[in-house]
Amino acid sequence: MTTNHHRYDFASDNTAPAMPEVMESLTRFNTDSRASYGDDDVCERAAELIRAMLDADAVVKFTASGTAANALSLAALAQPFEAVICHEHSHVATDETGAPGFFGSGVGLITLTGGSGRFNASALPDVLARPDDPHWQSPAALTLTNTTEFGALYAEADVAAIAGAAKAGGLKLHLDGARMANAIASGFDVKCLAKLGFDIVVLGGTKAGSTPTEAIVILNRDLARRFGARLKHGGQLTSKSRFLAAPWVGMLETGAWTSRAAHANAMAKRLAAASPFRVTHPVDANGVFVEMDEPTLHRLHHAGWHVYRFIDGSVRFMCSWATTPELVDEFGAVLRGLV
Amino acid sequence: MTTNHHRYDFASDNTAPAMPEVMESLTRFNTDSRASYGDDDVCERAAELIRAMLDADAVVKFTASGTAANALSLAALAQPFEAVICHEHSHVATDETGAPGFFGSGVGLITLTGGSGRFNASALPDVLARPDDPHWQSPAALTLTNTTEFGALYAEADVAAIAGAAKAGGLKLHLDGARMANAIASGFDVKCLAKLGFDIVVLGGTKAGSTPTEAIVILNRDLARRFGARLKHGGQLTSKSRFLAAPWVGMLETGAWTSRAAHANAMAKRLAAASPFRVTHPVDANGVFVEMDEPTLHRLHHAGWHVYRFIDGSVRFMCSWATTPELVDEFGAVLRGLV
Amino acid sequence: MTTNHHRYDFASDNTAPAMPEVMESLTRFNTDSRASYGDDDVCERAAELIRAMLDADAVVKFTASGTAANALSLAALAQPFEAVICHEHSHVATDETGAPGFFGSGVGLITLTGGSGRFNASALPDVLARPDDPHWQSPAALTLTNTTEFGALYAEADVAAIAGAAKAGGLKLHLDGARMANAIASGFDVKCLAKLGFDIVVLGGTKAGSTPTEAIVILNRDLARRFGARLKHGGQLTSKSRFLAAPWVGMLETGAWTSRAAHANAMAKRLAAASPFRVTHPVDANGVFVEMDEPTLHRLHHAGWHVYRFIDGSVRFMCSWATTPELVDEFGAVLRGLV
Amino acid sequence: MTTNHHRYDFASDNTAPAMPEVMESLTRFNTDSRASYGDDDVCERAAELIRAMLDADAVVKFTASGTAANALSLAALAQPFEAVICHEHSHVATDETGAPGFFGSGVGLITLTGGSGRFNASALPDVLARPDDPHWQSPAALTLTNTTEFGALYAEADVAAIAGAAKAGGLKLHLDGARMANAIASGFDVKCLAKLGFDIVVLGGTKAGSTPTEAIVILNRDLARRFGARLKHGGQLTSKSRFLAAPWVGMLETGAWTSRAAHANAMAKRLAAASPFRVTHPVDANGVFVEMDEPTLHRLHHAGWHVYRFIDGSVRFMCSWATTPELVDEFGAVLRGLV
Repeated sequence: MTTNHHRYDFASDNTAPAMPEVMESLTRFNTDSRASYGDDDVCERAAELIRAMLDADAVVKFTASGTAANALSLAALAQPFEAVICHEHSHVATDETGAPGFFGSGVGLITLTGGSGRFNASALPDVLARPDDPHWQSPAALTLTNTTEFGALYAEADVAAIAGAAKAGGLKLHLDGARMANAIASGFDVKCLAKLGFDIVVLGGTKAGSTPTEAIVILNRDLARRFGARLKHGGQLTSKSRFLAAPWVGMLETGAWTSRAAHANAMAKRLAAASPFRVTHPVDANGVFVEMDEPTLHRLHHAGWHVYRFIDGSVRFMCSWATTPELVDEFGAVLRGLV
Repeated sequence: MTTNHHRYDFASDNTAPAMPEVMESLTRFNTDSRASYGDDDVCERAAELIRAMLDADAVVKFTASGTAANALSLAALAQPFEAVICHEHSHVATDETGAPGFFGSGVGLITLTGGSGRFNASALPDVLARPDDPHWQSPAALTLTNTTEFGALYAEADVAAIAGAAKAGGLKLHLDGARMANAIASGFDVKCLAKLGFDIVVLGGTKAGSTPTEAIVILNRDLARRFGARLKHGGQLTSKSRFLAAPWVGMLETGAWTSRAAHANAMAKRLAAASPFRVTHPVDANGVFVEMDEPTLHRLHHAGWHVYRFIDGSVRFMCSWATTPELVDEFGAVLRGLV
Repeated sequence: MTTNHHRYDFASDNTAPAMPEVMESLTRFNTDSRASYGDDDVCERAAELIRAMLDADAVVKFTASGTAANALSLAALAQPFEAVICHEHSHVATDETGAPGFFGSGVGLITLTGGSGRFNASALPDVLARPDDPHWQSPAALTLTNTTEFGALYAEADVAAIAGAAKAGGLKLHLDGARMANAIASGFDVKCLAKLGFDIVVLGGTKAGSTPTEAIVILNRDLARRFGARLKHGGQLTSKSRFLAAPWVGMLETGAWTSRAAHANAMAKRLAAASPFRVTHPVDANGVFVEMDEPTLHRLHHAGWHVYRFIDGSVRFMCSWATTPELVDEFGAVLRGLV
Repeated sequence: MTTNHHRYDFASDNTAPAMPEVMESLTRFNTDSRASYGDDDVCERAAELIRAMLDADAVVKFTASGTAANALSLAALAQPFEAVICHEHSHVATDETGAPGFFGSGVGLITLTGGSGRFNASALPDVLARPDDPHWQSPAALTLTNTTEFGALYAEADVAAIAGAAKAGGLKLHLDGARMANAIASGFDVKCLAKLGFDIVVLGGTKAGSTPTEAIVILNRDLARRFGARLKHGGQLTSKSRFLAAPWVGMLETGAWTSRAAHANAMAKRLAAASPFRVTHPVDANGVFVEMDEPTLHRLHHAGWHVYRFIDGSVRFMCSWATTPELVDEFGAVLRGLV
């Protein structure tokens, strides 16, 4: 086994190991024989905990991939000849290698602009006013991401305004909550989602610090019909689903899902303070985006720290549940040494 | 948390928990930050172990679903307007809810018959002789399953005859090895696959006793180009891939993958001996298929034992790494009490 | 230009030229500039004539391919993870090169058996009783073909029984009417379709004697939403749609669509009488299916007559609007010379 | 039959009727029975004429839709997890309702910018330099349109530069020649395409003045394998293909395809001269694009002339084979009356 020559600590929140509460829960439920394909008590327990947290009577399914969870959900919300409205820098638009188009048989994306990955409700009337026409893919659904790809939080009022405009325009609503734990830790009230009429919400386990697992929360129960078959058809029905559900039981029973996200958020704030580079986006969650020229980035890489230049040209540092204050301070010193 | 009222011990090999070697390995590699999306040392180590076992210079990828691993692989081997030859009772034909058609954009299946899930090389000339014609989906690939859905082992000579005929006919070759560990434990030489020209082999971790993980082994390296993008596009590229690879390291370094399959196979033989019902298929691996009428099956269910009537009308009992001799004996007594 | 060495007169009903009423209508409307993509007065006129014939307030679209018309319609009636019930020998199951799976993203087919391409309502309860399960594609729609691939007519009572059982089971209904003109000419009351709850009916122009055109008749108007976009997305929205609509105006205004089908049906009856071979299916429409061994078929081919051995082993002779009594008599003599 | 209240003469080149040479040829070949699905002498004759014109040993297929011809061709050139490079205003990107994504199972589009629908070879190195990465759809093919959506002609040297850079970068090459007749009439040497390594070229019949027909010209014969099955699977194999081929025989034997395009081009120049509005794009082909404010456009519509505001904000006037000098002069006077 080779040593890790590069350090991925700030490269992404998915480079971190799994938190103790997840490993404990995997072990706890690793007993007995249990029904497969999600019909077991562990899946049921995880679903109950998620329903309680969202204060909603949802159907909950688990997948090992956030890309799949998003793409498969969007395919349930828009027909192939329709489109989904999203931010131009959203994960579905920029980082899923066309998975929405694959799961949605060529479903379209209509991209909106806006700073730090957030778009505004005021952008919707123009899109919705465009008449139905066989020559373009009319919008049927809208997806927003909270917190965004740029670590920014949508305020609840902004989400409400977007959801209201979307619903008024007949759109179905999807939320990519890959970092919903960070949003909650930053003050977002997750119970608003059902009230605002979101149809499907994807909650991220992986980036929050789990082994691979994402929860597809189907708030609109009309859409739940034959969802198991939808998952299986799409290669997303795991036989030993207990191992996708157990992490949620561990994270939600203990509160670790949000408390550890709060830690990650705090580490990002600490890093932003320690960094000498201009910060380019709000540090609402666990990411710090900075202005850094190419030679400087090269020196950082050369020093062994693997980080990415992001879509907008910023360099991104991600914190996670596993980021320690000492690590932040070490990295902060490295950054200060670059300038 | 509710108690399990039903017992799933013999319902499937995917109702079992994960073996200790898997849990140990998950814990062992749950340290440090590591590159995501398969570019880490754990994935590399698992791949090396698999290459050594197959004696082949393969590219290896990991997914959480065997259905997806098969469907995505077949899509790499046949165009949408072509077909894949398979057994009429194969998993891809009967138990994947159309996933091959989804991943393959309507790719066709040409089904062959044969006892206990095995078809014979002699069936191929007829299929291959049919002229190319725009009105049907000509065969481009062949898939076989070893051991089969009915717990039968293809002898190496039979696999060689099929592979030879297929290759001569210009077909690409896929093996569904969801239970390859059981096949190896039953005497199959896995090193023959590369020599026989198989293009992609899927090795099953889950049913062998792992947390969810399957290995896609790409023996034909021409097909490996942009396979990561293929996985991502198909919703099958897990960010924290280390947790799909670590089980393989644990199972292969210790030999548990095959030694525990040997145990499962032995438990099936013990159960076949203990059962008063007529056995309907060879007990080459970890399944026992018996003739049982509906009222008897009903009584067995009523006694709390969850088992399935299978495609061919047999009732199926599956053993796993976790099946103990005591459990077999208890179940054997239950079965004898039914007659 | 080479001479036709082979004679295709009885090979298919799509080997015939276009009838005079079609050519006249194409010429008649080949004036002026007109709106594209179906928004013109010729399309509107054709749709009106079809609505009047079916006595139903339908939305009507035109395509150049019957395979596409069927496949695209079925995709509107079943989700990708569901299935369509059809006859095992139906065109969608045997003769569309997987197009239903392509347009339907892997949608499944559940095949029923029955003589001469007809299945019976009594086959449905078993299929519909099977519980929803994520591991198979549950039926969502049913398609029947009238007249069938074997030239047999479904009696109206049989269609009603099937439609009733299907509707009671929650299925959507599709009719492949590639040879509906022949069915009507053989006594079928096309007005029953709307009353029986068919959702989409495809009416065949091409085989009836037109230049390429098929009518997709959407009786369930809920399904008509954004159907233009569905067509365009599926590569089926022809810009100069007038040329797909004009044939219908010509055929329906004059009654030629059914009167010429009646002629084709009569020619088939005349041919059945003239042929020395055992007839294997009812001669309800424009096809004659006979028992003929391979050497005899070979001699027929050698004599220059191109005809096909069909799915069930019969040899098929198709008549069309263009088949003359003299031609039937000539071919009858050839056939008699073979025995 | 209602009267046309609106005049579509300048709305599009697909609002025109079919030219006499097409109608004559349809009638000429509307005799005898002929093989279906493209295996007839008319299809062969049309293919020969196209091969002669392109000076290339190509396989030629005919479809009724240009959108389908493009989308299906691109699916032959790029895998679903790859992308096609195109102009941001190309038909495939803006006017096909996601058909490329449907036929290509989520294939991606990478859009380049450039005036009047033309991009430049200098844009390619940046796109091609981006490393293969599983998180984006790497380019596998390039498509360009000549003449462009804005009526501009790519000079042969520019096409050569693009093709050279693309081929050097390992890309497959597609040309959308919906208006190739106009390009040829404007001086483009169509024989260069095969020499430059284009893999598939789509030649437009419809906009040139035919009944619906487009030719898919497969210059790279490796791609021709099972193309008939590809067409059928995609709903694009017309049974009575002779009616898609006959127009080409008529247009190419007489030279009308290009001579009438030359007329359409000349009418556009005459209209540009007659129009009082600022022309926004080169008048290289049969379109005139002008600057016109919304109230003025409204008055033009009110006067009964149906024309479109195009993607870039210009108002578009299209001429066709059927546009007469008198009509141009009438319309020119109308336009002058608006200012």
